[in-house]
Amino acid sequence: MARVVVDVMLKPEILDPQGQAVQRALPRLGFAGISDVRQGKRFELEVEGPVDDAALARIREAAETFLANTVIEDFTVRIEEPAEGQQ
Amino acid sequence: MARVVVDVMLKPEILDPQGQAVQRALPRLGFAGISDVRQGKRFELEVEGPVDDAALARIREAAETFLANTVIEDFTVRIEEPAEGQQ
Repeated sequence: MARVVVDVMLKPEILDPQGQAVQRALPRLGFAGISDVRQGKRFELEVEGPVDDAALARIREAAETFLANTVIEDFTVRIEEPAEGQQ
Repeated sequence: MARVVVDVMLKPEILDPQGQAVQRALPRLGFAGISDVRQGKRFELEVEGPVDDAALARIREAAETFLANTVIEDFTVRIEEPAEGQQ
């Protein structure tokens, strides 16, 4: 069982009010030095069987079809390495 | 200018209706072989200056304080490598 991550972010030219709200709140809360914040979505898909090129192509199609709105959003698809994140 | 990514996901034991809705829609739309989907948030922070341990510690504190609700959500903080994603 492998995990594939689809990240969906608003395109750079699209206004991101959620991200702006976070960015404006940061200095007020004592966190300086952050010049921009963008907020998007992250999907973690548990894939049965091997994640080969065909499986990735299908997931990319699913992402394009209904996980992302490609008019206003960009997406990336990648296989998550185990223990990639750090708390 | 470096980019730090904060991923916020519901804890595994917390029900994720958004992810479930996506997972149930996938077979209907012709995408089989996905056994689970979890949906979360992704924040991209543009950090001024070097991203050293102190900066990462501050961002981790910000994530814990108000990007994530640590009662029900886990978060990871990482420096994004350039050209990590693939469309």
